[in-house]
Amino acid sequence: MELNGVEIEDTYAEAFPIKIARVLITGATERWALVAAKEATGFGTSVIHCPAEGGIEKIVGGDETPDGRPGVFIQICTFGFKGLEGQLMSRLGDCVLPAPTAHMYNGLPDAEKQFDTGNKLHFFGDGMETLEEIGGRKVYRIPMMEGDFITELNIGAVEGIAGGNFFILAENQMAALAAAESAVDAIAKVDGVITPFPGGIVASGSKTGANKYKFLNATSNEKFSPSIKDKVEGSNVPADVNGIYEIVINGLNEKVISEAMLAGIKAAVMIPGVKKISAGNFGGSLGPYKFHLHDIVK
Amino acid sequence: MELNGVEIEDTYAEAFPIKIARVLITGATERWALVAAKEATGFGTSVIHCPAEGGIEKIVGGDETPDGRPGVFIQICTFGFKGLEGQLMSRLGDCVLPAPTAHMYNGLPDAEKQFDTGNKLHFFGDGMETLEEIGGRKVYRIPMMEGDFITELNIGAVEGIAGGNFFILAENQMAALAAAESAVDAIAKVDGVITPFPGGIVASGSKTGANKYKFLNATSNEKFSPSIKDKVEGSNVPADVNGIYEIVINGLNEKVISEAMLAGIKAAVMIPGVKKISAGNFGGSLGPYKFHLHDIVK
Amino acid sequence: MELNGVEIEDTYAEAFPIKIARVLITGATERWALVAAKEATGFGTSVIHCPAEGGIEKIVGGDETPDGRPGVFIQICTFGFKGLEGQLMSRLGDCVLPAPTAHMYNGLPDAEKQFDTGNKLHFFGDGMETLEEIGGRKVYRIPMMEGDFITELNIGAVEGIAGGNFFILAENQMAALAAAESAVDAIAKVDGVITPFPGGIVASGSKTGANKYKFLNATSNEKFSPSIKDKVEGSNVPADVNGIYEIVINGLNEKVISEAMLAGIKAAVMIPGVKKISAGNFGGSLGPYKFHLHDIVK
Amino acid sequence: MELNGVEIEDTYAEAFPIKIARVLITGATERWALVAAKEATGFGTSVIHCPAEGGIEKIVGGDETPDGRPGVFIQICTFGFKGLEGQLMSRLGDCVLPAPTAHMYNGLPDAEKQFDTGNKLHFFGDGMETLEEIGGRKVYRIPMMEGDFITELNIGAVEGIAGGNFFILAENQMAALAAAESAVDAIAKVDGVITPFPGGIVASGSKTGANKYKFLNATSNEKFSPSIKDKVEGSNVPADVNGIYEIVINGLNEKVISEAMLAGIKAAVMIPGVKKISAGNFGGSLGPYKFHLHDIVK
Repeated sequence: MELNGVEIEDTYAEAFPIKIARVLITGATERWALVAAKEATGFGTSVIHCPAEGGIEKIVGGDETPDGRPGVFIQICTFGFKGLEGQLMSRLGDCVLPAPTAHMYNGLPDAEKQFDTGNKLHFFGDGMETLEEIGGRKVYRIPMMEGDFITELNIGAVEGIAGGNFFILAENQMAALAAAESAVDAIAKVDGVITPFPGGIVASGSKTGANKYKFLNATSNEKFSPSIKDKVEGSNVPADVNGIYEIVINGLNEKVISEAMLAGIKAAVMIPGVKKISAGNFGGSLGPYKFHLHDIVK
Repeated sequence: MELNGVEIEDTYAEAFPIKIARVLITGATERWALVAAKEATGFGTSVIHCPAEGGIEKIVGGDETPDGRPGVFIQICTFGFKGLEGQLMSRLGDCVLPAPTAHMYNGLPDAEKQFDTGNKLHFFGDGMETLEEIGGRKVYRIPMMEGDFITELNIGAVEGIAGGNFFILAENQMAALAAAESAVDAIAKVDGVITPFPGGIVASGSKTGANKYKFLNATSNEKFSPSIKDKVEGSNVPADVNGIYEIVINGLNEKVISEAMLAGIKAAVMIPGVKKISAGNFGGSLGPYKFHLHDIVK
Repeated sequence: MELNGVEIEDTYAEAFPIKIARVLITGATERWALVAAKEATGFGTSVIHCPAEGGIEKIVGGDETPDGRPGVFIQICTFGFKGLEGQLMSRLGDCVLPAPTAHMYNGLPDAEKQFDTGNKLHFFGDGMETLEEIGGRKVYRIPMMEGDFITELNIGAVEGIAGGNFFILAENQMAALAAAESAVDAIAKVDGVITPFPGGIVASGSKTGANKYKFLNATSNEKFSPSIKDKVEGSNVPADVNGIYEIVINGLNEKVISEAMLAGIKAAVMIPGVKKISAGNFGGSLGPYKFHLHDIVK
Repeated sequence: MELNGVEIEDTYAEAFPIKIARVLITGATERWALVAAKEATGFGTSVIHCPAEGGIEKIVGGDETPDGRPGVFIQICTFGFKGLEGQLMSRLGDCVLPAPTAHMYNGLPDAEKQFDTGNKLHFFGDGMETLEEIGGRKVYRIPMMEGDFITELNIGAVEGIAGGNFFILAENQMAALAAAESAVDAIAKVDGVITPFPGGIVASGSKTGANKYKFLNATSNEKFSPSIKDKVEGSNVPADVNGIYEIVINGLNEKVISEAMLAGIKAAVMIPGVKKISAGNFGGSLGPYKFHLHDIVK
């Protein structure tokens, strides 16, 4: 199968369940809402070494926020709800509460699972805080240095999906990178998803286990490493490929992951020098979700 | 004392020792080096709830990097060296190694304390990595998906200073915020320092302990809360002030903290509506470093 | 009338007919499409001294462009169609054709008035160019240094409206400026309009004619100048106002101008320190279009 | 000759005299100074169809500006001083005066040639303006809507150089583009120069005259067009090159042009996929300045 002359491999992305909390951060201006959102979702690429995965989902105008100010939806993801509660407390308490003009609202008010993170933050007010309603949401107004911090009492979470993905194989590194950037831009226009890696892009592919350093659970996947393709028996890197990036997508459900994969792949294949689109899986043994590229790109 | 017609209060900032590691991240372009740097220093405002404090120190051209590519110096800070080692491993391993085109070098090669973070990362290469020298630095070249990841073996660290600070008190929130933004821009031009909070700015001031919720170690400082200045006995908020921001500065030594405070204060007082510059301390009981505003602004 | 506690004056914006061409610039990535769009619309605030008014209308994904790449719609405006033809030739020929990865398409393919700007550019190909069809549009493919430049043959234009506007009066300059920035962000989400001034904002209000320098057609409107409000008899600057910005909006028709004014005003009144929203007119003697604030903010 | 394994062709850039005015725009913050600077230098790639060439030279802190605020140096260039005077009046009067918080100062106070642009703008004040001194510069303070606009009376200009250049030839378009971006970033760190094209980069190379359309003075240089290299006899495009960008540099004198070319070339050759650096000339028949690549890259 080809799209814009680029081969779409007959393979699938294997993905996993993850717990996702969704927060709406509003600001005096869009720019200040983004400042808080970036800080709160940083150090959040992969739960392998980061305490959570996180990213910016979308920017909205004042007509889509409880307080009429511009806002940014973020997602914070961990494998368990318990870890998620801790991460919400730390990331919202230490990165959104002190951020200039940032206020926070529940990004999943209808979810069954609700954390009382905002409620807990009210103790910071030391008795000067007040319970109010803004745009139909129950909030605390906490006096502090810049003025008042507003936080909705609850933050909702759902079981979503982590690790939706596809690979971009290109003639060289820069073609692969431009394609990855354009894919991430396109995915940013899809509701319900984030791309948690730096700039939305993964430069390093892992395999489970190791050939040499057996004490490691994951090491670089030498079969997808262009610089050693001639030394590695059974390399999966085609002769005309010298740069590969992976786009990893987390999202609220299978539908949005599929939409995001399609949007990203369609953008990537427009870049000259892109040779092939593939995807990462572990033979189906690990993740319950499978996203077949040929089903997505119809 | 006045500067550009703005009162400089006769007070001082009280600051603490902290351990600071300094990393030089290079990229194919300045923009990609920044992408890695932002991810690696996110969720890093304050060690109260963040696992480390972090920030971008400065951008440099290829003439100041071992590999001739543009780069970004970042600082990662924790109270102890043990915690710092873990944060370096997690933040560099999970936010720089997978970032597009990012390579990492020692930002303090002459420091006595050196962590072998880069050396440990070589195991990811699973035996395909090679030991080389680039620009006089010992590095590992690790084949991976995008091509090769380059990491210097060691990352140096020193005992530096956290919590250099000053307060900007203004007629209203937006004047205080514009002044804070301009201060942060000015501080970004000073070598050796970072401003770890979101956008470099703190919207929430704390006091130690609590009046009402005695189980808390720190709560909002009601005496610096403009919205309740008429309700709080002994409020420190002047009648003509309705917005306050704090700039918090970490840095390698006293000299750079002083320079940064001066640069920031000089920028802040240029903004119309700024009424007063103050600073935060705990009566001198906690931190060994004191930065007197009247010594800094001479 | 009040909105979020801010007075909406009972007045109207007076606007004028102008000719508007609309161009869709696509790029390898959104970022590169924006680079071309900004260059092509620069030096384009007001036809008083600029050769045209111009601005970015909106960013679109590859699903809304003929070539499947991300794109940016821009508008170029002059009083006459003849001047517009020259400006299209100069701005598209010298700012879009040489811009990295930029291609150009007709942003108003159904308009009655069509300029053959793209067709004229084909001569640059010196005979090596070819006539093709992309996404149903007739285009020239012109070989050049980066590869091929693609241009649709025609660029459409309509008679639209210039000078939709409102004023933001605030306690001080920084509150007015933050409100103006937020208003411009909100207007950017409305289709069919641009805000041609720098950052979308006007810092200087004019009156027709002059009190002292009679040889000038337009001079600073001293009655809207906060710094001299106490010296000017009949000043329109309220006692509590010390900073005023105007947002000027051009757009395809009355409907989109009204929508943009509403979106901008709703955003502006959310900023603390904003005191009043007004609008600029010349007593109705000049412009055929009147946008009453009380009709728009219902 | 090779640099980082990339061939540096034994050729030279041919450049021309041009008149350059230099303006220092200050703003409340760096961001707002940049907003004015970008508007004032837009529609300014080449005097072929643009009324002037323009660009941002460098950003400076408040310690390098007369008013203590952050600033941006811009250059505006035309072939004659008469045209330059008109462009300064239009671009500064219509793009800087109305830009939020922007003030303007002489960027070449010691130049022999001085235009009284700022002095002429004082008439906009309609008699309410005042003559003052700021940081040793004679300025007008003009009351207007946002507060006061400050303009120094004179703007200096010199005879400088236009058309310093080099070509980046790469394996494909995206490698060439990343190299061009990195080159422009590096050149931005050199004092005294601008890169007037969109993003600093030229996608289209011209030859003088035409093969087919003899009525044209300049057409696409088919010998540097990768997409038709197999059809064009005597093509200069190497077999392994499929994308070429040119960096064009204007600057105050030969020394800064040479420095900028060196900085840009050193950055460009670091990008994987770059094959060759060349330069553009007309056989030495037109421009009096010659910049030999082998002299610059020693």
